Amino acid sequence: MNTIPAEEAAAIYRNAVLKVMHRETQMVKTEESLGRITASAVYARYCSPLYNAAAMDGIAVISAHTATASEVTPLVLKQGVDYQVVDTGDPVRMPYDAVIMAEDLLDAEEDSVKITASVPAWQHIRPVGEDIVAGEMLLAGNHKIRPIDIGVLLSGGIVEIEAIKKPKAGIIPTGTEIIEADQVPREGDIIESNSRMFAAMTESSGGIPRRYPPIPDDYEKIKHAVQGAVKENDIVIVNAGSSAGTEDYTVHILKELGEVLVHGVAIKPGKPVILSIVEGKPVIGLPGYPVSAYIDFENFVRPVMDLYSGETNSSRNVMKAVLSKRLVSSLKHKEYVRVKVGKVDDRFVASPLARGAGAAMSLVRADGFCIIEKNSEGYEAGETVSVELFRDIEEISNTVVAIGSHDLILDILADRMPLTHPGIYLSSTHVGSMAGLMALKRGEAHIAPTHLLDEDTGVYNIPYLKRLFSDRDMVLIKGVRRIQGIIVKKGNPLGIKEIRDLTGVNYVNRQRGAGTRVFLDYKLKEAGIAPSEVNGYDREAATHMAVAALVKNGGADAGMGIYSAAKAMDLDFIPVGEEEYDFATEKKNLELPKIQAFIEVLKSSGFKEKAMTIGGYELSMAGEIIEV
Amino acid sequence: MNTIPAEEAAAIYRNAVLKVMHRETQMVKTEESLGRITASAVYARYCSPLYNAAAMDGIAVISAHTATASEVTPLVLKQGVDYQVVDTGDPVRMPYDAVIMAEDLLDAEEDSVKITASVPAWQHIRPVGEDIVAGEMLLAGNHKIRPIDIGVLLSGGIVEIEAIKKPKAGIIPTGTEIIEADQVPREGDIIESNSRMFAAMTESSGGIPRRYPPIPDDYEKIKHAVQGAVKENDIVIVNAGSSAGTEDYTVHILKELGEVLVHGVAIKPGKPVILSIVEGKPVIGLPGYPVSAYIDFENFVRPVMDLYSGETNSSRNVMKAVLSKRLVSSLKHKEYVRVKVGKVDDRFVASPLARGAGAAMSLVRADGFCIIEKNSEGYEAGETVSVELFRDIEEISNTVVAIGSHDLILDILADRMPLTHPGIYLSSTHVGSMAGLMALKRGEAHIAPTHLLDEDTGVYNIPYLKRLFSDRDMVLIKGVRRIQGIIVKKGNPLGIKEIRDLTGVNYVNRQRGAGTRVFLDYKLKEAGIAPSEVNGYDREAATHMAVAALVKNGGADAGMGIYSAAKAMDLDFIPVGEEEYDFATEKKNLELPKIQAFIEVLKSSGFKEKAMTIGGYELSMAGEIIEV
Repeated sequence: MNTIPAEEAAAIYRNAVLKVMHRETQMVKTEESLGRITASAVYARYCSPLYNAAAMDGIAVISAHTATASEVTPLVLKQGVDYQVVDTGDPVRMPYDAVIMAEDLLDAEEDSVKITASVPAWQHIRPVGEDIVAGEMLLAGNHKIRPIDIGVLLSGGIVEIEAIKKPKAGIIPTGTEIIEADQVPREGDIIESNSRMFAAMTESSGGIPRRYPPIPDDYEKIKHAVQGAVKENDIVIVNAGSSAGTEDYTVHILKELGEVLVHGVAIKPGKPVILSIVEGKPVIGLPGYPVSAYIDFENFVRPVMDLYSGETNSSRNVMKAVLSKRLVSSLKHKEYVRVKVGKVDDRFVASPLARGAGAAMSLVRADGFCIIEKNSEGYEAGETVSVELFRDIEEISNTVVAIGSHDLILDILADRMPLTHPGIYLSSTHVGSMAGLMALKRGEAHIAPTHLLDEDTGVYNIPYLKRLFSDRDMVLIKGVRRIQGIIVKKGNPLGIKEIRDLTGVNYVNRQRGAGTRVFLDYKLKEAGIAPSEVNGYDREAATHMAVAALVKNGGADAGMGIYSAAKAMDLDFIPVGEEEYDFATEKKNLELPKIQAFIEVLKSSGFKEKAMTIGGYELSMAGEIIEV
Repeated sequence: MNTIPAEEAAAIYRNAVLKVMHRETQMVKTEESLGRITASAVYARYCSPLYNAAAMDGIAVISAHTATASEVTPLVLKQGVDYQVVDTGDPVRMPYDAVIMAEDLLDAEEDSVKITASVPAWQHIRPVGEDIVAGEMLLAGNHKIRPIDIGVLLSGGIVEIEAIKKPKAGIIPTGTEIIEADQVPREGDIIESNSRMFAAMTESSGGIPRRYPPIPDDYEKIKHAVQGAVKENDIVIVNAGSSAGTEDYTVHILKELGEVLVHGVAIKPGKPVILSIVEGKPVIGLPGYPVSAYIDFENFVRPVMDLYSGETNSSRNVMKAVLSKRLVSSLKHKEYVRVKVGKVDDRFVASPLARGAGAAMSLVRADGFCIIEKNSEGYEAGETVSVELFRDIEEISNTVVAIGSHDLILDILADRMPLTHPGIYLSSTHVGSMAGLMALKRGEAHIAPTHLLDEDTGVYNIPYLKRLFSDRDMVLIKGVRRIQGIIVKKGNPLGIKEIRDLTGVNYVNRQRGAGTRVFLDYKLKEAGIAPSEVNGYDREAATHMAVAALVKNGGADAGMGIYSAAKAMDLDFIPVGEEEYDFATEKKNLELPKIQAFIEVLKSSGFKEKAMTIGGYELSMAGEIIEV
């Protein structure tokens, strides 16, 4: 599999598709045409107004007959002879050629009025065709219908329009190991989810998805499915098997059935993509990792779908942001790095997230992509970069950015925030306590959730803030007291009782700088045990939940963590001590409405009740401010 | 009807609605949840990966057993004892705890391999829960589902989610004069189109519209319809009858049935809006003029719908642009002025369009609103203003802005441009030749369509460019030769034969600066007729089509115009002379890709064929460049 640059691959494919494709059109009722794209220009059938219409409530008069009226020589007009009463919108017929507003009439009797000024012809009349003239072009071709267009089309007498037919996209999931989402997975199974993501992406780019049942890794079966889908659709997507592995049949099948124009693109994630034409239809092989598949869909499937659908408006919002960390990339490919963007101190900061192709959650958490072009080695921390946004810039501006230690209460806070404070959000990135404080220091976060024990004083968090932020006014927003302990398998089969017992088991540790690791180190020292005596001390997991998952699934016998994580995974828990999990921030941030909202949620009974149902928390101080 | 400020009205209403409303939720299949909004946080049921999985094709080994391997002391491993073959994604079970890539294996036999380096535990293994940990929050509440979310939800074992129910909006059109769009309108009829626009707006703001049949202006009938709609919907819209006119019953009905909180808002267009609560449901009376109705929907209906639907992302894009004309507004209200935005010479220029509430087409043509706040008198030409955009900024940047004289070929060009040059557009504003040249001079347009006869030389356009742009390098992009003449009723009942005959009839003229008016003036002078001898010389219509529409509908007996306008309206036409309709631009603009595209379309056979079918054009020079 040789790779070629992404732009070149897209251009080759576009030209090949343009040669074989044809767009179809269909008539659509105007009232059902929202979001459809016109196949050709639409011309008005009627004028609007359809006739000369009164623009005011009043009387229609013959302007020439009012010429002598003045303050000195008022004129009395007779109904039926000199005027007719009209309401706004009523037709004004010849010989009447002007309207006088009701409030300008004097001595109005049953059938006569007095006026004291002449009126020019066409006063207060909306002439026929003032808004729309019959025969006039209402909409150009290739125009996406908006609500106001529907109003104007109907006013112009157009009850149906010729629209571009939505392209049909066939989606074929393949793989012996995949199961449907409603089945109970066993070890070795992978839940099929990509095809549903593609279906939604197809829909949101103006196509009609058709998802076929999964096909096992079998050359003939996949070939048969592709042949069927090519007949029934405009575009076909095969997923996965686009790599060059032993069971990756897709490329061989597409070579047999048609022409493979591209196999392998210098893009990361997303390298193993296949772009082919089979019987005059584009057939695209997408990789299995969800992030790769997503990026390849955006780069290679959507542009092709746009050729069929006539959509042009799929361009992303691009913004400038300051990069929080150095980003190194290979010269060999164009790389899409997921970033979270926060507005801190009036500047937008982009923080890179996990880069693995398998990390789909990092795409959910991301606000956009920072793209590192091929032949670029990347960017330095502090550089201003362009970010392709998925999220509204206003939403980003109204988000509290938390970077630091993870606790399940962060999820609860993030969930409750937009409910009680509409339009305000909390986003959290979990890097451990110390890394969170460093992010706060670099201006990347508003708050840093932290639980760092000072070994000398036995005090939590405050000594660290004093040491790290000696030049700034800091506060601690109190969070919760929570229980730290050893997470073990249900029933505690190894009979672990205390720290000393960790020496004999397969342990999983937290990363350097995590409060839980600091806590372990403190406890090991207390017990006189060297880290090297703990088997697995060097193996790191990033969150309490990741530790619990490893214990649950046999990847480890024990790990230090919080009660709520053990409970969420239905594991046993041996309490070791209590600690303080708080939120560090700069004092000036307390004035920000979004930080005030955060504190309000933290103090709310709604939040506290939710946290109590999880258990393992003491909440009496939540939301209190401690000046450091 | 007293008016209160728009923001105050919205706040009063919001608070009143919050007191009575309740949101409902429903379960939605994950695969069908695109665009739905989560009612509460969603937590993962399974981990992803579900098990410790090989991240590479190769062999799974026991890391501790590889400790002695080195270049000097290679180690031979036996299949089934020391290793198992794994493909990417395969489970790696205890005691195996690391993967060696296939390409790092030496002397690979059927059931043995050689390795020359030890491997650390967990090498090339994606541990259980690396992407998603069971129990982890996947999505917060009030989150709008995107394609990637669907993928992650399914991977986490979530096959259905609790979503906020879409609010139902009942829409009641009223008015004795309104007819359905598929009926043939007669004088006095108005085609009902607002309700369809509201339905589309409801849909695009996350609601489900239900449109009721039109009700005539009858107190009891409207009352009955409102009562029924309130029972069946979450929100009800009544249109129109929201003014204070004699047949405007809506406010009285709403007062009888419930509480009217606001009647009349200091907003323009859109003053006569009614905000009420009937039996715990918001009922909103919207005005009849489409532009007023649109603006009131955006300001008062959409925010209420958002409260029910959970949508928050309806904020508009705002951009800065330079105002092309002075905009004067009353201190008494907040005014929404429709503007067209063009990117000319690297700056964005906003040109105000028609301001009437009845001018729905100007809303179709607009790119956004320039909002003049209450208590502001407006803006000066050249001031930088904020524009709330409806259109993509990239699309605006790729649009050729034409300001000047109107001809039907502009419509054809605008229609063909995006078809032959995807992503490039032509927008035209019709102000007459001279006003177009002035706009070009002020840097508001790329091209000015013009047909101005120089009386002294008999030459078209070039003398005007020389005079007006003496300091700039200008070119004329040749357009068409076309026939000017007198447009009269079918069968020419008044027997008009020449310019002289215009003195005896009801004439409609074009506005000052229009090429057609210059042409008339020239012909009148030639014939020795004073303008004052022509009855209607001072009455102005803005386009050829508007002139033709007035003649067609009896508003005038005759008007000067082009053959294509007479033909489009099925009118008779008395040719008077031929003229040259060209496009003026600055020479430097010829380098712009969008101007090149414009010239290409002008020269294309596709365009010429279309123009020929209209008739009255001579196209041999179309697209030629004349340096001035």
